[in-house]
Amino acid sequence: MVVADLGCSSGPNTLRVVSEVLGAIADRREETVGGQQPPVLDLHVQFFLNDLPGNDFNLLFQSLELFKKLAAKEKKGEALPQYYIAGLPGSFYTRLFPDRCVHLFHSSYCFMWRSKVPAELSRGTVVNEGNIYIWETTPPSVVQLHRKQFREDFSQFLKLRHNELVSRGQMVLTFLGRKNKDVLRGELSYMWGLLAQALQSLVQQGRVEKEKLDSFNLPFYAPSVDEAREVIKQSELFDINHIQLFESNWDPHDDMDDGDVVLDSIQSGVNVAQCIRAVVEPLITHHFGEEILGDLFDMFARNVAKHLQKVKTRYPVIVLSLKARHAPKYPAKDSCHSVFSRGQQRMEDIASN
Amino acid sequence: MVVADLGCSSGPNTLRVVSEVLGAIADRREETVGGQQPPVLDLHVQFFLNDLPGNDFNLLFQSLELFKKLAAKEKKGEALPQYYIAGLPGSFYTRLFPDRCVHLFHSSYCFMWRSKVPAELSRGTVVNEGNIYIWETTPPSVVQLHRKQFREDFSQFLKLRHNELVSRGQMVLTFLGRKNKDVLRGELSYMWGLLAQALQSLVQQGRVEKEKLDSFNLPFYAPSVDEAREVIKQSELFDINHIQLFESNWDPHDDMDDGDVVLDSIQSGVNVAQCIRAVVEPLITHHFGEEILGDLFDMFARNVAKHLQKVKTRYPVIVLSLKARHAPKYPAKDSCHSVFSRGQQRMEDIASN
Repeated sequence: MVVADLGCSSGPNTLRVVSEVLGAIADRREETVGGQQPPVLDLHVQFFLNDLPGNDFNLLFQSLELFKKLAAKEKKGEALPQYYIAGLPGSFYTRLFPDRCVHLFHSSYCFMWRSKVPAELSRGTVVNEGNIYIWETTPPSVVQLHRKQFREDFSQFLKLRHNELVSRGQMVLTFLGRKNKDVLRGELSYMWGLLAQALQSLVQQGRVEKEKLDSFNLPFYAPSVDEAREVIKQSELFDINHIQLFESNWDPHDDMDDGDVVLDSIQSGVNVAQCIRAVVEPLITHHFGEEILGDLFDMFARNVAKHLQKVKTRYPVIVLSLKARHAPKYPAKDSCHSVFSRGQQRMEDIASN
Repeated sequence: MVVADLGCSSGPNTLRVVSEVLGAIADRREETVGGQQPPVLDLHVQFFLNDLPGNDFNLLFQSLELFKKLAAKEKKGEALPQYYIAGLPGSFYTRLFPDRCVHLFHSSYCFMWRSKVPAELSRGTVVNEGNIYIWETTPPSVVQLHRKQFREDFSQFLKLRHNELVSRGQMVLTFLGRKNKDVLRGELSYMWGLLAQALQSLVQQGRVEKEKLDSFNLPFYAPSVDEAREVIKQSELFDINHIQLFESNWDPHDDMDDGDVVLDSIQSGVNVAQCIRAVVEPLITHHFGEEILGDLFDMFARNVAKHLQKVKTRYPVIVLSLKARHAPKYPAKDSCHSVFSRGQQRMEDIASN
């Protein structure tokens, strides 16, 4: 069975998907031992961890020995299937695999990033003055460009992955989305809007040129569930097993699920700023230089704190489980890992539990 | 088609095998265009670049974009097959792939390194006094331990790769070997003997303890063609397409094929020392500490120069092309990439030209 994680990064959560898949298989094996022949006993799992070539794959690879020891200890070794882990550098908006090779694609918190800033915005023929993403003052033409880019990217992504998946292969995507129907007031629009405010303050202080801010656009779009569903439907390539939107606090250290009160908005502002800085620092540095980083994110932390005092805002997160439809030109028997075809059925069993 | 390079490193030659395989396929496509349907037109090639987890995969991955551009330019793009490059961290003395997945294994200048120093030597129950590898004063018990380690490693390697290869899959290995029948006077024995001499000088100067030198053993064995052939025969897993020994000058900058004279033995000594330092520096540093490195390799360069003044010595290099025998328990139709089965035949066509 071949499993690919798209946008794996190289942090403490990177190997989570490997753990989860191995754990699901091991549990299934343990369940059936003593009764019938365990159906996943001879399963080999090949994992591909994908990210852009600039990702720290060295760090990731050097953590694998320890990971393997811990995984074996936790699951008492014998329950785990044989598994292999490779690194795969490249954008998931390009082909990453030969035809019909992959049984399961997974991607966590990556798919809201677009393949590029829409050409009209990056050329400056259309300008989103004072903003870095869609916000309250964004003109409709800019909204349309971001939406179009999302539709093109998602549609292309579905085509690429459908070619790479075995027949009836599956895909689980988790990404930031939008709950508010009004695209100008999406929850992520507030987040990026508060960062744009901090940049505007630097413009007022004369530390950043206004043109520099106006020419900076995030390659980002947080779609609504309906927008995502529409592209999937139009593609005619996948059936939707499951689509759901849940919410996650802006502050990653705030695990209070209910209530509309932020206990310590100053600290939450700092936490949010740290988190967002880790994500966008390379983009900011590339466009504005690194001199402004410290002050920018200090101001951003204060802006976030002020916002959270008024209203506790959450990220809407879309979880999407898709199953590839049969491709008419490749009958099922031609799938590229016929020795793994049992693996595919097993993965479906595991996924359906 | 799946191609794996074992011990890929991360230098300027790392992507050579990718170029060569793509070039061979592109040439075959160009040959047949205009005549019959090109047999390799729809071939996708998936490369796995393998090395130990400490290899600089980041450097390698960051060079891929440029490599792809140059490859497309050189071959005018359209002749190249679709290809994908993954990194695979791990020792090639362990399983690296699921069963019956790989069409071609390649390994260049790695397979003379053993999986470990023989246990009796590393525990110190047997000692190779004053030496770091087999040399003139090495006792027969030590020679036997090195030989046994080679046989075990090679036999294990053949079993692992045979499980991973598709039926009739192929393997091309290039590694340092031995031409001299006398194992105590192998060409590599001279090389390591001159490094041992430099370490002995440091012992005499009181900068390295004698016990430290006596407990240092290279996990290395340079077999003769007959020794390699014998292990392959005993394994009953592979047919030998081709086995050959050629010779390469110690000094990588000396491209004079004939003649027994080294033009500038001082410079050649420096060149050889640089080259060997790049290979064994991590092992030396780990055992002796980094303080001795500069002086050690200066002395080694002088020892090599003195040796080359007396006799121009060459590395014997064994090139080995193997084809996997059918595995009785997996009939050919069960190979893991049935959609690539045409690829396998094509690879055989390419390899036989």
